[in-house]
Amino acid sequence: MPIPILYCDRSSKELTSRFLQGAREDLTTATNRILPILEAVRTKGDSALYSYTETFDGIKLKGLTIDPKSIKTNIDLKTKEAFLRAKANIEAFHNEQKRETWSKVIDGNRLGVKYTPIPSLAVYAPGGKALYPSSVLMGIIPAKIAGVPRIQLITPPQKEGIPEILIWLAQILEIDRIVTVGGAQGIAACAYGTESVPKSEFIVGPGNAYVAAAKSYLSGQGLIGIDSPAGPSEVCIIADREANPKWIACDMLSQAEHGEDSSAILLTTDETLAKRVQEELEIALIERPKRLEMKRKAIYENSGIFVFPSMEDCIWFSNELAPEHLEIQTQNNEAIFSKIEHAGSVFLGPYSPVAMGDYISGTNHILPTARGSRIYSSLGVDTFLKRVTFQEVTKESLETLYPFVKLMSELEGLDEEHGTSVKVRTKDHQ
Amino acid sequence: MPIPILYCDRSSKELTSRFLQGAREDLTTATNRILPILEAVRTKGDSALYSYTETFDGIKLKGLTIDPKSIKTNIDLKTKEAFLRAKANIEAFHNEQKRETWSKVIDGNRLGVKYTPIPSLAVYAPGGKALYPSSVLMGIIPAKIAGVPRIQLITPPQKEGIPEILIWLAQILEIDRIVTVGGAQGIAACAYGTESVPKSEFIVGPGNAYVAAAKSYLSGQGLIGIDSPAGPSEVCIIADREANPKWIACDMLSQAEHGEDSSAILLTTDETLAKRVQEELEIALIERPKRLEMKRKAIYENSGIFVFPSMEDCIWFSNELAPEHLEIQTQNNEAIFSKIEHAGSVFLGPYSPVAMGDYISGTNHILPTARGSRIYSSLGVDTFLKRVTFQEVTKESLETLYPFVKLMSELEGLDEEHGTSVKVRTKDHQ
Repeated sequence: MPIPILYCDRSSKELTSRFLQGAREDLTTATNRILPILEAVRTKGDSALYSYTETFDGIKLKGLTIDPKSIKTNIDLKTKEAFLRAKANIEAFHNEQKRETWSKVIDGNRLGVKYTPIPSLAVYAPGGKALYPSSVLMGIIPAKIAGVPRIQLITPPQKEGIPEILIWLAQILEIDRIVTVGGAQGIAACAYGTESVPKSEFIVGPGNAYVAAAKSYLSGQGLIGIDSPAGPSEVCIIADREANPKWIACDMLSQAEHGEDSSAILLTTDETLAKRVQEELEIALIERPKRLEMKRKAIYENSGIFVFPSMEDCIWFSNELAPEHLEIQTQNNEAIFSKIEHAGSVFLGPYSPVAMGDYISGTNHILPTARGSRIYSSLGVDTFLKRVTFQEVTKESLETLYPFVKLMSELEGLDEEHGTSVKVRTKDHQ
Repeated sequence: MPIPILYCDRSSKELTSRFLQGAREDLTTATNRILPILEAVRTKGDSALYSYTETFDGIKLKGLTIDPKSIKTNIDLKTKEAFLRAKANIEAFHNEQKRETWSKVIDGNRLGVKYTPIPSLAVYAPGGKALYPSSVLMGIIPAKIAGVPRIQLITPPQKEGIPEILIWLAQILEIDRIVTVGGAQGIAACAYGTESVPKSEFIVGPGNAYVAAAKSYLSGQGLIGIDSPAGPSEVCIIADREANPKWIACDMLSQAEHGEDSSAILLTTDETLAKRVQEELEIALIERPKRLEMKRKAIYENSGIFVFPSMEDCIWFSNELAPEHLEIQTQNNEAIFSKIEHAGSVFLGPYSPVAMGDYISGTNHILPTARGSRIYSSLGVDTFLKRVTFQEVTKESLETLYPFVKLMSELEGLDEEHGTSVKVRTKDHQ
């Protein structure tokens, strides 16, 4: 049973619809389980954190936070070189996203926008097999560039201790502390603050269903801001007959390597390419058997090769999918990209596999999933900045504009005070 | 019982703490009440909308939507002139917020950001006494400038029909339709889509607790994007001895005019000013008795005059409050503003009462409340744009960077596919 090749047009709803559901996790069960945890952390603070960590992680913590500066690390030079190169590129790309205060005179008055950072941030880094040091760079660097003054890292404790690479990253990123409490209790600690853990106003980073449910619930309560919810990883690839089928198969398996619920979609007009990618996937699954069952499930059950009558149809379907990652490997990449409306991050040309962006090129790999790119963006400097608008009205402009304010406030039944607050400042009333 | 004057310093937690709670509404009860409504609209579509409108609004609708172009309106010239002036200023300010695609070569590769609009928007406009036509301008103009292709207005039906001013605004703003269904059922109609009401991906605008609960719940489900939750209106005023106490009292009452839960806070170092504003508030409440009980409650119970030892302390407390509106009426407005970190919109100098921004100057009056400006912004063009990042990696750069990707992907246990997807593109493997 190779990956299906689906011959479609825009009316093929029976073939396309299941890819357009948006696989957002139902968090109801997880939310019900975490509510008592949140309440315990809110009311009991540190002692609840010690107790949940013993219960859930089987670890008796001696303290809840680590000062990364206080710990010696011994990371080899090659590893340092790789992460420092990634850091430099991520910094260069996000430095371009800084915002400057501006103002302009409009109808006689000076109006403008000043950008200020959010006051504090916690970045969640999952533990165990889901430990991705690269995600720590992606979460923290944009916040640093935005100027967020207080940043802490949350990560579950490990029996062998917190991985050295995390501590070293915390050192070079100059963050305040590592909070060694995972799960919903770690999120609650940062959202409410405890004796040992200072409150964070904003929490980002992927985690399991309990972490996601805690973030979502606490954000709904107005306690914290969060990034867009993380779901299974996905790639969409638009390719034509000139594309390399082996490379495309590798890129599809790259997503499959993340989990059995991951999805890889190829859109093409070329039946030959479709069949060759189908073959290359079979070959690759034999040649590279690591995590085989997971990759097979992702490819056979959640992925697909779509053959559409025209490139316009491929673009249409890509925009419907609003994929997390979009690769364009055709003879007309720029023309196609100009018609792309919704995608988290776009990879142009044959030498831009998603893995380049995952690790080293400099773009952010924390991206909206589950069709979220219709309305959300990847993590960036803007995620951590607010627009504070401002205005300075002149005496003359206030005189000129008062009659309009009078009329509009009367219409809205707010003339007695809103109207008066302008009227008292006019010449006739001073 | 005049408004309290509170002599404070940074340690006066017993005086300041209740103003730092962030009066976010508890939506639990409202959420439980709306869940069956959402489910009915999702499964039964139009018929549920007709039935709920009859039950809740006592109106038998003949249709659920109105095409504004199909209706003749008769708005007087003065009213048109006022709203058109406001529209022009709001457009001018928000036009400055447009974003251009950019790219830059970083470590040999072209990286950039393209801005695209969200696909669709619904703007909620409350009915009855809370009908604020100015808010319709504030919700729709930034979305139009962002390029949002499909925009609809949702508003509860009225026995006397939809107000002409709303229809005229819908005409000049060129929106697609008015959905004449209010409350949670109106929000659900737009979030799910029904036979008559097209789905919207994003919903903004203030409403009652049921509207707020529906927006928050559906956003948590990943179905729609929303603006930051709306709460009671608030103003904070930083003033020194040169400020006009009568004007300040007017500005405070302007907020009080919105509701008894509204809040007006004066921060000053000058005891004389504090006492004179206290007196002016008493005078004004006698002189302008409209909505007296409401204004008295807001001023006496939810507002306060704070006298701090230094201007630095006033700034500190303003940043702790993170007010929706901040007025600065001192001899050093710019110096103080430069230290402001959190505020929705800032009004500089004696001729900038909040009412100017509410109606006519051009800044947006849909702002984060309940201390939300620590992490959220006012509505703006950015609200309706997403950052689509992109990259084009060169063959040479891929060769150079492959060893780093190899090392990092091995460290994360993702070398078999992530690493391979880069390796197959290197010279040695082609």
